[in-house]
Amino acid sequence: MQFIPEFSDIERARKLIEGYIHHTPVLTSESINKITGSGIFFKCENFQKAGAFKFRGACNAVFTLAASGSDMKNGVATHSSGNHAAALALAAQIKGIAANIVMPVNSSEIKKRAVAGYGAIITFCEPTLESRESTLAKVIAETGATEVHPYNDFNVIAGQGTAALELIEEAGQFDVIMAPVGGGGLISGTAITVKKLLPGCRVIAAEPAGADDAFRSFRSGKLVPSVNPKTIADGLLTSLGSRNFAVIRDKVDDIVTVSEEKIIEAMRLVWERMKIVIEPSSAVPLAAILERKVDVINKKVGIILSGGNQDLEKLPF
Amino acid sequence: MQFIPEFSDIERARKLIEGYIHHTPVLTSESINKITGSGIFFKCENFQKAGAFKFRGACNAVFTLAASGSDMKNGVATHSSGNHAAALALAAQIKGIAANIVMPVNSSEIKKRAVAGYGAIITFCEPTLESRESTLAKVIAETGATEVHPYNDFNVIAGQGTAALELIEEAGQFDVIMAPVGGGGLISGTAITVKKLLPGCRVIAAEPAGADDAFRSFRSGKLVPSVNPKTIADGLLTSLGSRNFAVIRDKVDDIVTVSEEKIIEAMRLVWERMKIVIEPSSAVPLAAILERKVDVINKKVGIILSGGNQDLEKLPF
Repeated sequence: MQFIPEFSDIERARKLIEGYIHHTPVLTSESINKITGSGIFFKCENFQKAGAFKFRGACNAVFTLAASGSDMKNGVATHSSGNHAAALALAAQIKGIAANIVMPVNSSEIKKRAVAGYGAIITFCEPTLESRESTLAKVIAETGATEVHPYNDFNVIAGQGTAALELIEEAGQFDVIMAPVGGGGLISGTAITVKKLLPGCRVIAAEPAGADDAFRSFRSGKLVPSVNPKTIADGLLTSLGSRNFAVIRDKVDDIVTVSEEKIIEAMRLVWERMKIVIEPSSAVPLAAILERKVDVINKKVGIILSGGNQDLEKLPF
Repeated sequence: MQFIPEFSDIERARKLIEGYIHHTPVLTSESINKITGSGIFFKCENFQKAGAFKFRGACNAVFTLAASGSDMKNGVATHSSGNHAAALALAAQIKGIAANIVMPVNSSEIKKRAVAGYGAIITFCEPTLESRESTLAKVIAETGATEVHPYNDFNVIAGQGTAALELIEEAGQFDVIMAPVGGGGLISGTAITVKKLLPGCRVIAAEPAGADDAFRSFRSGKLVPSVNPKTIADGLLTSLGSRNFAVIRDKVDDIVTVSEEKIIEAMRLVWERMKIVIEPSSAVPLAAILERKVDVINKKVGIILSGGNQDLEKLPF
């Protein structure tokens, strides 16, 4: 199997998962356009099933494994504290197979309930990468389940690329398309789609300054691991994956970093002006625009709003 | 002029205001359908310009006055602490005329800013009906502006009826269509539309138990004024209007009341499951369903989500 997907893999993913995923709407806001001096089209993956774009990649991974004749009777497994866990649980439920999810004990109650609500078998671990990985290895040894990595996975990347495909089909030409970067699943899938369909369109990743391993990797040309990242954008705490980095080096035009203050300001702006619920990770590209890290004046810009799983009791404003 | 509009007035309103208002989306939620045992179609007026359905009626009133050759050079005027104020200010701005808004001094800062942001001239008054009315009378005497009442107005009712018109055109047949009732502008316009297009569809108004003047008026057959209403649904504190009551008596099948607890529960459910921002008034019909005040099992239900102007620093959860 190839290391990274091509656009044809994304087209194949779309055929496989359509009918299971939501074709999410593309929204615009006159007041945000006025504030930024640009025309921004928001692809609303906060409305996706399980509340985030992660369901695209999880579906494509599970359905591709099932269609390939892999032995799936022992189910799938992953470690995740958040959106990938819920997405994989729901995708497995659709195929009627078990989802074994390793979650740190300190994961939010709302996320634990969501994962359990999709029928997953949860094994709790300590909130360290070592504990997550060793617990997952033990679960896989015991169950025989197939691991589906949250982002450093061929089929997951191909699935995430379908969001940009829908965005371009619906809204046409763009000058710039942006997405947040954490592990890199969304931005790598997005870049493969955009550079095929709109070769002249710039692809820009936005990352919290407090979790800037992708930025440093991109600038240095070497994969820099994430050490003690700190950001309110909890979906972006993960370390960039090797497959994701390979795509980013080849197809992403720039990575910019943003402050925590601007992430919160951008998040609030979307809630107040667009009347939609997004989680902090989703706000990072707009934060980069507000912080003037990206030139968008009089340009047509696409932003993928990655998810909407925000605990309403823990708002930053 | 007639006392209350007919469906042809609503069709005329639609032609007059289209191109100025947002044709808002209709959203559904699998999980809310599962919880309620019904199929609910939410007409998202929280995405309307100025954040609420009020913009439909305000536009129709201002545009109709302008088209009728009325002397509009002195602008329009109203008293309102909330969504009608912002809606009228924006409608007047579109026509390039002045909007004179009387607002209670204790109106929320966010609403004061919104109204000022649309270029209105604000006159503050005491937070009593007497002060609101006497201050408005004074403003009108001084300016020569034309009053546009928030709900007890022929053209405002006709404008509000366009939301249900769009809902039915998009989603087809319904068993039940619901809206909240405060002054009665939305439910009266809705009822005129529904009873014309879907004569067999029930129209049900939902009202907070702590502000149940419409419920008591409907049951007694006499207009009962609202005395010291108390509810988190601040858009529904107003007293039912006489024109609105005339429509309700004729065309609304039932009015049900709901507890504050269920309003908050329903509001939270919409935020968490649908990832959209609604204000408490919008949640009142769903609250009635959760409280089993309306039989919706296996039925197709339309709900008009009236608005999304929620102060993010004052969430009830």
